[in-house]
Amino acid sequence: MITSTAHADGRLVVELVKSTMRDPGPNEVVIEIEAAPINPSDLGLLFGAADVANAEYSDRKIVASISQGVVASMGKRLGQAMPVGNEGAGRVVAAGDSEAAQALLGKRVACLAFGTYARYCIAPVGACMPLSDDINAEEGAAAFVNPLTALGFVETMKRDGAKAIIHTAAASNLGQMLLRICQEDGIDIVNIVRSDEQVALLRGLGAKHALNMKDDDYEAQLVAAIAETEAYVAFDPISGGNQLGRILNAMETVASRDEGFTPYGSNTMKRGYIYGLLDTGPVVIDRFFGFSWQVGGWLLFPFLQSAEPGMRERLQARIMAGLKTTFASHYSQRVTLREMLSRDAVMAYNARRTGEKFLVTPQG
Amino acid sequence: MITSTAHADGRLVVELVKSTMRDPGPNEVVIEIEAAPINPSDLGLLFGAADVANAEYSDRKIVASISQGVVASMGKRLGQAMPVGNEGAGRVVAAGDSEAAQALLGKRVACLAFGTYARYCIAPVGACMPLSDDINAEEGAAAFVNPLTALGFVETMKRDGAKAIIHTAAASNLGQMLLRICQEDGIDIVNIVRSDEQVALLRGLGAKHALNMKDDDYEAQLVAAIAETEAYVAFDPISGGNQLGRILNAMETVASRDEGFTPYGSNTMKRGYIYGLLDTGPVVIDRFFGFSWQVGGWLLFPFLQSAEPGMRERLQARIMAGLKTTFASHYSQRVTLREMLSRDAVMAYNARRTGEKFLVTPQG
Repeated sequence: MITSTAHADGRLVVELVKSTMRDPGPNEVVIEIEAAPINPSDLGLLFGAADVANAEYSDRKIVASISQGVVASMGKRLGQAMPVGNEGAGRVVAAGDSEAAQALLGKRVACLAFGTYARYCIAPVGACMPLSDDINAEEGAAAFVNPLTALGFVETMKRDGAKAIIHTAAASNLGQMLLRICQEDGIDIVNIVRSDEQVALLRGLGAKHALNMKDDDYEAQLVAAIAETEAYVAFDPISGGNQLGRILNAMETVASRDEGFTPYGSNTMKRGYIYGLLDTGPVVIDRFFGFSWQVGGWLLFPFLQSAEPGMRERLQARIMAGLKTTFASHYSQRVTLREMLSRDAVMAYNARRTGEKFLVTPQG
Repeated sequence: MITSTAHADGRLVVELVKSTMRDPGPNEVVIEIEAAPINPSDLGLLFGAADVANAEYSDRKIVASISQGVVASMGKRLGQAMPVGNEGAGRVVAAGDSEAAQALLGKRVACLAFGTYARYCIAPVGACMPLSDDINAEEGAAAFVNPLTALGFVETMKRDGAKAIIHTAAASNLGQMLLRICQEDGIDIVNIVRSDEQVALLRGLGAKHALNMKDDDYEAQLVAAIAETEAYVAFDPISGGNQLGRILNAMETVASRDEGFTPYGSNTMKRGYIYGLLDTGPVVIDRFFGFSWQVGGWLLFPFLQSAEPGMRERLQARIMAGLKTTFASHYSQRVTLREMLSRDAVMAYNARRTGEKFLVTPQG
């Protein structure tokens, strides 16, 4: 299994280690992991703020430096070998005594677990979904994090009483999935990206609104798109910088046009959810939009915890039915556990570049 | 009456004009205004972003410049003479035909209305509260905006499931009122100010936690105060700068101590409400606090609109009972309508300095 250990002296050690598998509890199963994606949300635990460019790479081991400021924030994690990898798919090779666990024995499942970058992994029955025979491990490997996140955005927008979505860094795997969901559900989405190639990519997928934030007239394009869609909820994985503030200002331009002037800004609620950390710099909100606004973090697990009863089951059933279409992930590269720890691989997947997504194949 | 008119050519004209009073509607009353406070929330409509230091002052008239950027945002306000002053107190000298309006005739009332910087003002019956005989106009002049705002903070904190409050610029009239409310209700409050004099002032009023954000060890003091009070909701009238982000980081330091490390930060929800604009610069959030956070605007009228049935009546009854104590405002200066438009007066009250609050006496 691959573990990540932060030490008080500022070393972060990521290594492939042999470990003895404990017996599964009554409601647990042991899964022989065949495929696991490297999601942006895995990279935080794997490397955090470590300096991977200047790390020491050897066979099955990486030793990188972390700053003392970051070390100080790690508290109870220090010295603990954390298993990495949040989801994956594989065959159930052992099961606990409960009926539910025994029912999964021999089946291929997708799972949400700690430590899927491993040959074997233990997961609770409730975090497994059996895959139908026509779904292979690669197709089932990423059945939880991205699909539930994209569907969660739509549910969040509805809960906020809004009717359309703005999404930044929208050419990502997650962004394309969100676009397909919105197309299926007839929801308008304004996709914001950083290059003409990404605009073309999204238009090719049928996106009606795909804007390049580097265009000179980006602001005007954004105002026009918001006026057309009434998109007053934005989801942003970038975090640092002023892009979310600019979006809220554009929302205000549209909202205040009809409402008329008030010194407190428009009454239309403008919301921004930050769900990633592509830019770790400060969030800068140069606001001209009065007081009807809200910016905050969005994370899958708290969202699922706050979800109404039955929602998670409903969303999971939709995902299972669409694993080859709406919820399909695309991988640019496949690596074994050893290959995953090579400098070339790390530099590639840790760059979080659009269109580059890695799949780990632990049995390879 | 005093009006503020923004013109498309970039002139902002604030002037004392004679106007003919229309007849009150059935549910309206005419109030002879005896006293009206100048609240920070009045200054936005009065001067907005105009350059008052370099304005042209003449008898009953101020002509100031506003930038073209601001003019562009004013839309339907341009060319309209806006009556200024949001609350005040005085005698009802005429009333509409309804029973409720007639019942107020001859009584002294506090009112929430548009245009209380005037000798007479029309207000709806529902926005008036009759004052008991022992309350004079000065004591009743500010019975709405600050008291309802301070009580609204406490209600908001409770709605968020929190148990203590952090308040910045806490030595203000509003801040002292909030402190008195928290003392009455047994709620912990961490007061943050910018000078040792303000710390001494608040401690003199019995504040247990009064911190000077300019102290070298401010961060450590803040962490200790949050650890003691569990204050995970902050109210901030400053807006621009990084002070709110620093508060949220301090909340995270406390929250993550016990929860242990996760790459997504603590699960404790950290909230910041921006309710003013003392600094119009960008809000800068240099965040080290994961994804369980929310920052947004807070404004009295939307809060009242979202309040549960009966809350406003409950809060108003409490205010009426405490106008001489908990909800008393203190004024450093009294000005007539003409004096209010002098350069000396404008430069003083527009500076929004702690401890300086003006009362307008239109009959003087």
